[in-house]
Amino acid sequence: MRVNGVPHRTVWLEGSTVRMIDQTLIPLEFKLVDLPTVEDTAWSIKTMVVRGAGAIGATGAYGMAQAALLAPEAGFHAFVAAAANRLRGTRPTAQNLFYGVNTVLSAIEAEGDQIAQARAAAVAAAQAVADDDAACCAQIGEHGEPLIADGARVNTHCNAGWLAFVDWGSALSPIYAAHRKGKKVFVFADETRPRGQGGRLTAWELGQEGVPHAIIPDNATGYYMAKGEIDLVIVGSDRIAANGDVANKIGTYSSALCAAAHGIPFYVAAPTTTIDPDCPTGADIPIEEREAEEVRYTWGWDDAGRFVRVLTTPVDAPVRNPAFDVTPARLVAGIITEKGIIAASPAGIAQVARR
Amino acid sequence: MRVNGVPHRTVWLEGSTVRMIDQTLIPLEFKLVDLPTVEDTAWSIKTMVVRGAGAIGATGAYGMAQAALLAPEAGFHAFVAAAANRLRGTRPTAQNLFYGVNTVLSAIEAEGDQIAQARAAAVAAAQAVADDDAACCAQIGEHGEPLIADGARVNTHCNAGWLAFVDWGSALSPIYAAHRKGKKVFVFADETRPRGQGGRLTAWELGQEGVPHAIIPDNATGYYMAKGEIDLVIVGSDRIAANGDVANKIGTYSSALCAAAHGIPFYVAAPTTTIDPDCPTGADIPIEEREAEEVRYTWGWDDAGRFVRVLTTPVDAPVRNPAFDVTPARLVAGIITEKGIIAASPAGIAQVARR
Repeated sequence: MRVNGVPHRTVWLEGSTVRMIDQTLIPLEFKLVDLPTVEDTAWSIKTMVVRGAGAIGATGAYGMAQAALLAPEAGFHAFVAAAANRLRGTRPTAQNLFYGVNTVLSAIEAEGDQIAQARAAAVAAAQAVADDDAACCAQIGEHGEPLIADGARVNTHCNAGWLAFVDWGSALSPIYAAHRKGKKVFVFADETRPRGQGGRLTAWELGQEGVPHAIIPDNATGYYMAKGEIDLVIVGSDRIAANGDVANKIGTYSSALCAAAHGIPFYVAAPTTTIDPDCPTGADIPIEEREAEEVRYTWGWDDAGRFVRVLTTPVDAPVRNPAFDVTPARLVAGIITEKGIIAASPAGIAQVARR
Repeated sequence: MRVNGVPHRTVWLEGSTVRMIDQTLIPLEFKLVDLPTVEDTAWSIKTMVVRGAGAIGATGAYGMAQAALLAPEAGFHAFVAAAANRLRGTRPTAQNLFYGVNTVLSAIEAEGDQIAQARAAAVAAAQAVADDDAACCAQIGEHGEPLIADGARVNTHCNAGWLAFVDWGSALSPIYAAHRKGKKVFVFADETRPRGQGGRLTAWELGQEGVPHAIIPDNATGYYMAKGEIDLVIVGSDRIAANGDVANKIGTYSSALCAAAHGIPFYVAAPTTTIDPDCPTGADIPIEEREAEEVRYTWGWDDAGRFVRVLTTPVDAPVRNPAFDVTPARLVAGIITEKGIIAASPAGIAQVARR
């Protein structure tokens, strides 16, 4: 998608250097970061310079291609295996990371001791992982675009935009497709406490792409629905169970309840890689509870442009901070995937799940 | 209520000096501020050193008593009238402010040119306004306390605690009453974006009083309801219409929808002064939209203890920032007033409304 008018992806490979957008600086600054070694690439995932399922998957894949390019001929496979372990260890719950790393590792191993071929295969496999992610997201946009009427006001939560993937995004992809087709579309972007991905990333993406929007506090969703100013909700997902239950950023469920109370269609957009066919229902999805500091302190830029944290609660206040919630399938109007819009039901899921 | 174990009110009169808790410093610091002149008292309201309907009303009343005490004998009534204008102009939409100022002004005027009597009447009337506020809130606590079962987990939004009144508070008063009776009670305090009154003030109050609690992001309410961890919701109100519709801090309505979806009783606690019998329904309550900066920037204490703001969005991001929302009467289980718990209905309201 466009940054200052120029098309960009979140991450790519140049020679043996992984390049990416430094997402920790957005929205204040747009800066690319060069990662010349596998250690650097692993660091970028661990410190969330790159975040979002698809973007992390592609970074893992490129990190493995980088490992193949940098590995000495003597000890080639040991070097590559160590790189895989290092990359996989950065975000141990990131499904797409394992997928990206393992896909490229398999391509390397398939070449045996043909090191030149293994290097070429690694680069091709990594590129395919990234291209597949971008293509899936583009298709999500095409399938979801007809849901957005000319003049529609769409509400979204957190950041399921292109920064979370290689390009296009999931929840925002239909919006971008509609906007590029010339439809009028307005986005209410929930700021998404406590980490503020909506206010920081979604608002920045929409601004760069020229899509009219407004940031709202998460708790204002019901208000705008009651006023009849929201026609449609589209959110992303971190994991979809076999019965169609959807885990996503905390607050998604509250929004789904508000949407249901107002008869507003609530859609989930996600590539089919997000579906976990081995997870029977939402109740089987473990919900990570994150540290209290994330709620007590807010990070942002002070008036001198320094990225600092400010305390907004008693310093030792007890806090509960669940990172995700589960929206039951019955509240989901449909799941927009690269293979089309499916029902949030066992039958719908079975249609498209990759095994 | 208690601060560091010592009972306190939010505001009181000592000689001709108004003293109050500086609410802008909470939760980091507990400091009293002395306001020796009417100008100082007006400043404290305008800059939100004091906030909350009941606390502002009492401050206005004490400011008028202060005016009567400080007014020269020559030009006594002109001085007092100017003070009334100055105080009323600080927060032009605060109903309780007018009530406090006008009540004391009437008491002064009733004494005609008997200046000594007028001064005494002013002090007595101001004290009565403050005492009446505290007494109403204590009664709200007594009436609401039976709703809280031993072991109950209560959710509240924003700050409708004693800091918003003279003492006890509205939504928190039944909780304090239950806690002092020895009942186990746990409070989920919504942090309440964008101004964070829940995370700043409610959490501080509960901590000082020793009530077990946790701050949660506003968007986590639905999650804890779905988990069966919330038994009851009690919120305050800024204005109640004649049909029982309730205006309160933005996010109240979303919480009410979540509560309804889970069959969780949703109560409003407010003194009957909050009822506006001239306002037929919630649709007639104007909703103030506040400046974008309030959402773009978060104020808090940096690691050096300075109170600063940090930017968490693109610097010029479009923002919608409604300050209040309206919860329709049908979602309200009852309104806890100083006269008892009434139905959120025209009949219930007619029973207790002051005209």
